[in-house]
Amino acid sequence: MTPGGFRTVAVIGKYQAPEVAEALLTLVAYLRARDLEVLVESDTATVTDAAGFDEASYEEIGRRADLAIVIGGDGTMLATARTLAASGVPLVGINQGRLGFMTDIARDEMTDRIGDLLDGHYRRESRILLEASVSRDGKPLDDGLALNDVVLNKGDAGRMIEFEVSIDGEFIYNQRSDGFIVATPTGSTAYALSANGPILQPAISAIALVPLCPHALSARPITVADTSVIDLRVMPLHDARLYCDGQTRIDLTGGDEIRVQRSRHSTIMLHPVGYSYFAMLREKLRWSEAPRYPS
Amino acid sequence: MTPGGFRTVAVIGKYQAPEVAEALLTLVAYLRARDLEVLVESDTATVTDAAGFDEASYEEIGRRADLAIVIGGDGTMLATARTLAASGVPLVGINQGRLGFMTDIARDEMTDRIGDLLDGHYRRESRILLEASVSRDGKPLDDGLALNDVVLNKGDAGRMIEFEVSIDGEFIYNQRSDGFIVATPTGSTAYALSANGPILQPAISAIALVPLCPHALSARPITVADTSVIDLRVMPLHDARLYCDGQTRIDLTGGDEIRVQRSRHSTIMLHPVGYSYFAMLREKLRWSEAPRYPS
Amino acid sequence: MTPGGFRTVAVIGKYQAPEVAEALLTLVAYLRARDLEVLVESDTATVTDAAGFDEASYEEIGRRADLAIVIGGDGTMLATARTLAASGVPLVGINQGRLGFMTDIARDEMTDRIGDLLDGHYRRESRILLEASVSRDGKPLDDGLALNDVVLNKGDAGRMIEFEVSIDGEFIYNQRSDGFIVATPTGSTAYALSANGPILQPAISAIALVPLCPHALSARPITVADTSVIDLRVMPLHDARLYCDGQTRIDLTGGDEIRVQRSRHSTIMLHPVGYSYFAMLREKLRWSEAPRYPS
Amino acid sequence: MTPGGFRTVAVIGKYQAPEVAEALLTLVAYLRARDLEVLVESDTATVTDAAGFDEASYEEIGRRADLAIVIGGDGTMLATARTLAASGVPLVGINQGRLGFMTDIARDEMTDRIGDLLDGHYRRESRILLEASVSRDGKPLDDGLALNDVVLNKGDAGRMIEFEVSIDGEFIYNQRSDGFIVATPTGSTAYALSANGPILQPAISAIALVPLCPHALSARPITVADTSVIDLRVMPLHDARLYCDGQTRIDLTGGDEIRVQRSRHSTIMLHPVGYSYFAMLREKLRWSEAPRYPS
Repeated sequence: MTPGGFRTVAVIGKYQAPEVAEALLTLVAYLRARDLEVLVESDTATVTDAAGFDEASYEEIGRRADLAIVIGGDGTMLATARTLAASGVPLVGINQGRLGFMTDIARDEMTDRIGDLLDGHYRRESRILLEASVSRDGKPLDDGLALNDVVLNKGDAGRMIEFEVSIDGEFIYNQRSDGFIVATPTGSTAYALSANGPILQPAISAIALVPLCPHALSARPITVADTSVIDLRVMPLHDARLYCDGQTRIDLTGGDEIRVQRSRHSTIMLHPVGYSYFAMLREKLRWSEAPRYPS
Repeated sequence: MTPGGFRTVAVIGKYQAPEVAEALLTLVAYLRARDLEVLVESDTATVTDAAGFDEASYEEIGRRADLAIVIGGDGTMLATARTLAASGVPLVGINQGRLGFMTDIARDEMTDRIGDLLDGHYRRESRILLEASVSRDGKPLDDGLALNDVVLNKGDAGRMIEFEVSIDGEFIYNQRSDGFIVATPTGSTAYALSANGPILQPAISAIALVPLCPHALSARPITVADTSVIDLRVMPLHDARLYCDGQTRIDLTGGDEIRVQRSRHSTIMLHPVGYSYFAMLREKLRWSEAPRYPS
Repeated sequence: MTPGGFRTVAVIGKYQAPEVAEALLTLVAYLRARDLEVLVESDTATVTDAAGFDEASYEEIGRRADLAIVIGGDGTMLATARTLAASGVPLVGINQGRLGFMTDIARDEMTDRIGDLLDGHYRRESRILLEASVSRDGKPLDDGLALNDVVLNKGDAGRMIEFEVSIDGEFIYNQRSDGFIVATPTGSTAYALSANGPILQPAISAIALVPLCPHALSARPITVADTSVIDLRVMPLHDARLYCDGQTRIDLTGGDEIRVQRSRHSTIMLHPVGYSYFAMLREKLRWSEAPRYPS
Repeated sequence: MTPGGFRTVAVIGKYQAPEVAEALLTLVAYLRARDLEVLVESDTATVTDAAGFDEASYEEIGRRADLAIVIGGDGTMLATARTLAASGVPLVGINQGRLGFMTDIARDEMTDRIGDLLDGHYRRESRILLEASVSRDGKPLDDGLALNDVVLNKGDAGRMIEFEVSIDGEFIYNQRSDGFIVATPTGSTAYALSANGPILQPAISAIALVPLCPHALSARPITVADTSVIDLRVMPLHDARLYCDGQTRIDLTGGDEIRVQRSRHSTIMLHPVGYSYFAMLREKLRWSEAPRYPS
């Protein structure tokens, strides 16, 4: 066991991405050299011909790992977070290119930063997840999980959809717009931000409700407590779609009802020493970067 | 000829809408009583069994009419404006329900307001149109005309598209977003407004360029002179669509090039006495409506 | 003691406002008829010649009352909340005119709704307060308390001020703008909203940081946990002011440092049965009120 | 006379700024070497002990110069443009530091770029000016000229002011806000942009009306034709101020009326070869600068 208390570490790579092979081999070697049991996610293992990995399914990783190291970008982190949500296994991300919103460690500092982390030098952060469930004609149709956002979006046909929004059983409004984003604080810097949603520090127990191109001039986003139950009802004759993290999709039809609420699961992220949320905002989004003032 | 100089008047109804029949009959009778030659657009004539109309194609209306009265909503006005664009026939709109952005006359005041207008009491307003032409592999693919807007929009597959924007041959930026609106002043209160575009009084000779949910925090709309030539190029591997007035659609694929510029045609609108653009904004959009201040 | 557990009730009126006299007399009579001990705030008592009130200072009210009923508008509620912050006495507001963001009960339903409340039918809500302390040359200069917001604002001289923002000791950015709002969720629907700040449901444990007319296009508001310590430092040569709830003011000069953080006190508000936060937003702000769609 | 048709050139430096002395001497020598008559603005001449300048007042410059070269920043350009407005003398700006919105030429390329310009290689651009006139009790009180903006701003006392806005004699709305900006296209990238105003290409004949922190959620800016007459009336009991280009100030009191309209004068700016408006937006404002997308 490392000073940080880790014994079994899983490594998960970007889906079918041969370019992670080298980092994977280096990382596995490093982890073994620290006497850790290393599980390599089964699909990930196929990116290299190297033999001798202990391959493991997500199910097994969820059951056995003390830490999952993700090699890839934010997309890989999102997918992994949803897949491992129920397990509570903490995640940390290594990015081979530019750092991401959720991938804190650069490839070329990989072993140093992971080393620190294994030694117990990290900050632990819990991130809420959303779950969405869709009913048609009163019967469950499908459901999904999201670390960033659940997005109701216009379908293929027209330009606007109409839907009803209720919160905790109270009718809030009827909206005509391109759609509606229900975002976690994690997702507040993703798609919701493009739609003028608020930036919410991850620690805040809240959910942002962000209209997508609403015609009403007074339609501002609102941030509600993360105990809220949000119900959306697509109006008759309006086709729409529901996306979770922009990665999974459910096709909707008029009358469908979508319930979104905080999942009982959370994603644990471990941040290396020196991680700063605000620095990440400045770096990734050029947030509040000063104009070049005329003298 | 009426005091306002009208001799031949066309009447055009909402497409296949039996509910316009009664207004149509009343209006035609009124116009005939004023000794005008009345042309009823051929499809419009089918909404009633009444006989004896002089039916006319859009082509004939364009050639012969001094005025086209549209019974319907803004959608009918948009379609008529595009169809009659080359003819220069002035338009006026009658709305059977709530007044629209472009339909100034209410059904129950129809004969009075049209009477005033025929007597020469009206304000004439010229509205620019946009034309969009799409090329693929350097060859013309399709084109369209728009009174409100030409909208490049993400396709069915993903969440964002990437495209290049040039103005008058100068590269402006590369954008990742849900799409891009090129709007006339007329269209500035339509879809572009939902995307935080500027409100432009119709008389202004300008075109608004409005990103749809761009991720860049500093991506503001810009309003350029209406002599500008705007070129959009969809990046490889990005599917997209182009809409004109949200009514006609062209499917695009990566590499397609779209050129948007002011059409050489304009739409002439006649506004009845008492029409106010600002009052219309307040009425339709609740623009600048005061909050109910706490005492 | 009432079924709701109230024994001593204070009544506080809008400052030097004779128009509250009648409501005051009616309310005091009603409360006495319910066998409650009634304290009338000393200044409030002067608005009427009626004798026989048990007059009390704020200090005594804070010490003895189980409930303070405020007759006035949101301004009176703000001032009362700050004054009674340390006492924990719950507040409820009666508005003689239009309902406010914080004054839930209309004058003409006063006794019915207060009656319900005394019977125990109410919703209790805790609202955070902010405290601001200003230092000059390293020494404490002045401080203030706010239920809505602490606002750093440009002074009388110029158009922009420059200041540094740090959160929890970490430098965040240097900003040139008209000022900076630090708002509670309660204040998120007040001045901060005019500056494009986020709407935060009162239950959220968060503080909104909202720039006032920043020149940087990428300067978005951010919402941070209510445990955050926010430090502002006015740059040399820039005069500025600090307002608490827009009601108290501290004049600042270049180099001054302002620390804003959640107060250890909270304000308890009691809402009558039927109160809805979202309905209040719609009513007061016309929030998300639908445009009058063209047909 | 130069190939570009210039015979007499004025040089104007930043007010009382010794740091322009060197550039001034170099520039004057260069201009003389090209056989031009050189007028040095009288105050400008005092920044150096060098003798032998032909000193001239603004009045004389306005009467005699074919071109005025401004050494300074945007502030100096604004002041010069207002002072020389009636004369029609074209302006070009040299910036000793970072380029400005209106100062296109960098100090170290000064003689090359000015040389090109004198040879006739430049783009001529006409920029509208606004004039504001204030009346009190029906009598003229004061007036001002602006190249960027006329700004009605809250005074020293309170937080919001209330005023009435009319356009071309038509009452538009009553507004409670921090103030109101009337901006030219030139000014659309200055203060108005901080208040979410539209970016207008300078060639557009339009005026932007931009509320400053209005409480009404539906209060969007509007862009009107530059033939519009805008009247503002400060409500009784509200103190306010009027700024022209943020440089001149008129103190207002309740009841004062301000009329703003396009001046009959325009400012002519000469841009060196290679000048690009869009490049300037990107450079100065980081306009539409892409976020650093996560891979």
